[in-house]
Formats: sequence, structure tokens, C-alpha cells
Amino acid sequence: MPSYTVYKGTKDGKIVQSTTERPGLKDGEVLVRITASGVCGTDEHYRTVDMVLGHEGAGVVEEVGPNVHRLKKNDRVGWGYQHNSCESCEWCLTGRETYCPERAMYGFADLDQGSFAERAIWREAFLFKLPDALGDKEAAPLMCGGATVWNALRMYNIQPTDRVGVMGVGGLGHLAIQFASKMGCDVVVFSGTESKKEEATKLGANEFIAMKGKTELDISRKVDCLLVTTSAQPDWELILPVMAPDSKIFPLSVAEGNFSIPYMPLLLNGIRVQGSVVAPRAQHRKMLEFAAQHNIKPIINEFPLTADGITEAMQTLKDGKMRYRGVLLPQN
Amino acid sequence: MPSYTVYKGTKDGKIVQSTTERPGLKDGEVLVRITASGVCGTDEHYRTVDMVLGHEGAGVVEEVGPNVHRLKKNDRVGWGYQHNSCESCEWCLTGRETYCPERAMYGFADLDQGSFAERAIWREAFLFKLPDALGDKEAAPLMCGGATVWNALRMYNIQPTDRVGVMGVGGLGHLAIQFASKMGCDVVVFSGTESKKEEATKLGANEFIAMKGKTELDISRKVDCLLVTTSAQPDWELILPVMAPDSKIFPLSVAEGNFSIPYMPLLLNGIRVQGSVVAPRAQHRKMLEFAAQHNIKPIINEFPLTADGITEAMQTLKDGKMRYRGVLLPQN
Repeated sequence: MPSYTVYKGTKDGKIVQSTTERPGLKDGEVLVRITASGVCGTDEHYRTVDMVLGHEGAGVVEEVGPNVHRLKKNDRVGWGYQHNSCESCEWCLTGRETYCPERAMYGFADLDQGSFAERAIWREAFLFKLPDALGDKEAAPLMCGGATVWNALRMYNIQPTDRVGVMGVGGLGHLAIQFASKMGCDVVVFSGTESKKEEATKLGANEFIAMKGKTELDISRKVDCLLVTTSAQPDWELILPVMAPDSKIFPLSVAEGNFSIPYMPLLLNGIRVQGSVVAPRAQHRKMLEFAAQHNIKPIINEFPLTADGITEAMQTLKDGKMRYRGVLLPQN
Repeated sequence: MPSYTVYKGTKDGKIVQSTTERPGLKDGEVLVRITASGVCGTDEHYRTVDMVLGHEGAGVVEEVGPNVHRLKKNDRVGWGYQHNSCESCEWCLTGRETYCPERAMYGFADLDQGSFAERAIWREAFLFKLPDALGDKEAAPLMCGGATVWNALRMYNIQPTDRVGVMGVGGLGHLAIQFASKMGCDVVVFSGTESKKEEATKLGANEFIAMKGKTELDISRKVDCLLVTTSAQPDWELILPVMAPDSKIFPLSVAEGNFSIPYMPLLLNGIRVQGSVVAPRAQHRKMLEFAAQHNIKPIINEFPLTADGITEAMQTLKDGKMRYRGVLLPQN
């Protein structure tokens, strides 16, 4: 009977150690020993809920259940926000299982386990083999952060000839710059200050715009596709004038309340606001292959995979000091 | 020297008769005698501006200028919101001239003429030959109202297997129902009360939902594509639960302020909010052919094309009493 250490939040936001027990491996299930976990803004969102945190997992297959056909012991694997889907609805059958009405997602299903843990049990169908070129701690942040920006860049007809704007240089943004740049796109980064300019340029940005205090943005070419990865919603009055006609906006941050944007500029310029989540599996696999092929890696800050380590990592993220993705590593 | 009667608004919203003089027909220009003009909500929007009103024109070619090659005297033609574009930018060269940075649009260019007039002079390139099967007074409302809903239905990959929602049964909505229905779509209409149910059903709606007083909508199948044609923004809290995952929303009404929608449902269901204007010319032509082929016609209320007639038509529209598009007809 598998039993393993997990880490949860509490009502008052403390991180505590707990134990999950499962009766055993069911059909198609795999027991993974976790070797790395990314820390995402969404974890903060669920910090006061009674659930195991973490959804950017990497690890090694320790045991396979009945009818597991593709994975075997010692395979390196990762997983992300989604754990299951019905595999028979319109969305599942058309490679969009992230929108399956029965989707099992972080925060809504399997609350007894996550990637802030020693082990986890997942369906083989939702585990991804890791390419040799990607280390576990580099792969983990791709599982949600990477998959989120990849989905926006690959599922909505973005072209290599497009100018791609990346707003916010953080866990998602610093991966988006690399992906878009390697796809051939002309990347412009929007950030608060100039502080991340050098790093953004190294990652592939062609232009860098510091927005703080600006009432108008001076830009060399308008933006065909904008990925908003900041935690707060941007000032759309400032941004809309730099959007090209018939362009796309992807608000990728998690936030409460309304999405609110000046209406007539949206209408008259044929702008598209596209809701988007993580990548469906076919796209997620392509992301891992593309990252391996182009040597795309997150820049990480390491923390121990312990209650204290998690607490420190989440505080670093909250303080806006993560450069650029926190990764938790087991201490044995 | 062409000189013709036109009708304008004034600062205090009165409709007055005036005269436009042009030096003559320039290269590629055509003089049109107006035989019918639709009345659109946007005309109300410009009622207090010093400009000639009207942008749903139909008429007969009276004279052609130098280097007019396609049209000849007595040809029946129509025109809409757009009068010109640069013909060399990225958008013009890819069939999206409605987004040309130099586009000449109603309200922004050619303020000395419109379709509330006796005559007008337009570039041949932005005039549309009318199919024989469409009378002038039936063609006029297609020039903006028809073109607006057609653009949403044809430029964004809407499929015959989609469920299309039409919110608001008015000038745009009653055309959208017909177009979508003839394209094979499963059409559901959202209206305030049951008052337009019978007519909407005759036009092609499969389901009709009266929203007034409802806190939850009971629907037989979720909506893949929603055209919002009401003058006021809808209650998105009420609407979002009936939108399918990965669905599209087209807010087509003209309104001030912000477009504001609950953010997390938009994100988690991968919903797309698509700004959209009138149809580019290639699509506009297809709309006219499709309307002729399928006997799609607006239901119209006729008014005299005089200052009094315009005033009455605009008041009828403002009062929400137009069934479903006002058309002005010259009195000779």
C-alpha cells in the first residue's frame, strides 16, 4: 500500500507536512518518485486550501500498475496541471482535452497529491517522458509555466513572421521569450523597469520596453501577439495603441474579478482576447522536444523540498524576487 | 460639377438638408444616384457631428469617371462603412483591408457625403454590384448590418456544425439568424422577452431563450459562437455558463467604455473574445451572392428619404420599435 510524504497549505497559510495513502496502483497508474518540482503562482492561490500543493512535477517511475504499456521502471517523467480527462468528448477527441468537461485539474481533483511531495500516483496517459537533454530540475518548470506559454504560441496560429510581445519577465515570461525567439518571431519584452533588460536580450528579445511612469509607449513595430504573464492586469489604455490590427492578446495570469479592456479600440482594430490554459498532451510533448532541440531551459532558483524550503520559495515568489522559476529538490 | 442634396445631423441632434459640391469625378470614381439607404445604430452615434449621415447605400450608377473599368452607367451598386484603403499594406494585401491603417471609414473620412443623400461619389473599388435577385431596398441593410454579422460568421472559422448564438433580434440579429441557419448552423436566439420568438423561429432559429428576469439560462446545447448584437452589453455572469469550452464571442454592438467580462471563466474555458468590424470586399461579395442564392432578405420598415423621414426612422430605432431595419427611400 503506497504511502508517501506530501506538503499542504493550511487555513492560515502555513506549509505543513502530511502523508497520503493510496490502496495501490490501479489500472494504468504509475508511482513516481519526485525529483524536482517547480513553484508556480497558482500554488500561492491554493495555499489556504486543504490540498497537496504543486503541479510542475518531474521524477522517476518507481512502479507501474496493471495495463501500463508505455512507461517502465526508472523512466524519467513529468506532469503538469492536468491529470485526467474523459477521452471521449468532442474536446478530448480533437486534441483539446484541456477543455474536457470532466477534466481533472490541479485545485479541482486529486487533492491528496501534488508535486510538493515525495511521491505521487498518476495515470500513465498524463505523464510525459522527459527528453535526455532536459534535466529533471529544468523540465519541472516546463510542465505548467512552459506549457502555458507554449499553448498560446502554438495553438492559435502564431507565425514565425509575427512580432510577439511578452509582458512580464518571470517564470512564464522568461520561457515565452525563449520559445518565441527560437520559433523565429520578433520578440519585444514589456517590463516595469530596465532591470531585466540584459537578461531578456540574452534570452532572445529584440526590443525591451520599460513601462513604469510611461503614458505612451515608443515601439519600433506593432505587436501581433501579446502574452501577458504579469500577476496584475496591465494598463490597457497604454498597451492597445501598440497592438497591430487583427492582433491577439493572451491574458495568462491568474486573477480574480473581471477582464476589462477599452471596447471600441478592441472592436475597430479587430483585436482578439484569447483565454488559454496549459497545453494539451500532443502539444506538451512537442514543447519538450522543441526545448531539448533548441537548448531552451528555465533559469532556476533552487530550494529544498521541505516545509521550510517550500515556505521560503513561495515567499521569494510573492516578493517578486524569483529569478525566474523556483524549483524544489528533495534532500536525499 | 456634381452637386447634390445630403442630410446631416447638427449639434442639437436635428436632421437638416444640405448640399455637397464636388469638382468632378476623379480617376476611378463613380457618381451614384441613391435609391435606398439603411438606417443603422451608428448613424445615431454621429447624429450630433457635422457630417453627412448614412452608410448602407444602394443605388444606380449615373456617371463614371476616368479609368473606371468594371462599372458602367445604370449598373446597380451598393456600398457600406468603408470607402477606401491604401491597397499596399499587409492588411490590404491579405484581404483584410478593413484594418488598413489608412482605411477611409464612415465617421472618419468623406464626411461631406453618405447614403442619407440624393447622390454620392465613391471609388469604383469600394462599390459592390448588386445581384439581380436582391432589390435595392433589400440590399441596402446588407451593406453594414449584413456585412458585420457575415464577417463574424465567415472570417473566424465558424463551422456548419457549430451552435451559433445570436443575442438581440434587430437589424443585425435578424440577418445573423438567416445567414447562420442557411450555413447549416444550429441557431439559438437570446432575446429579452418572448415577443420575437415566432419571427426568430421563422427566420431559422432552433431555440429561443427569453432572458429577462432569469438568473440562470436553461439551454439544450452550449454555444460555440455568440454574436452579440444588442445595443447594451449583456450580463456576462448569466451568459458565460452557456458558452462551450473553446468558444467564440463577437461583441458587435457599438458602445462606449470598457468591455468587461469575468476573467477566470474566460481563461479556464479558453474562450475567445473577438473584435470584428464589417466584411472586407471579397467577403462582402460572397455575402451578396449567398443572400441572393438563399433568398435571404432583411425585414424592413420604409421611411421617406427626407429630413422628416430620417428623423422619424432614427426615432423608431431609438425607441426599439424598428422591425427590423429601417430603409429610407427617395420620394420621386
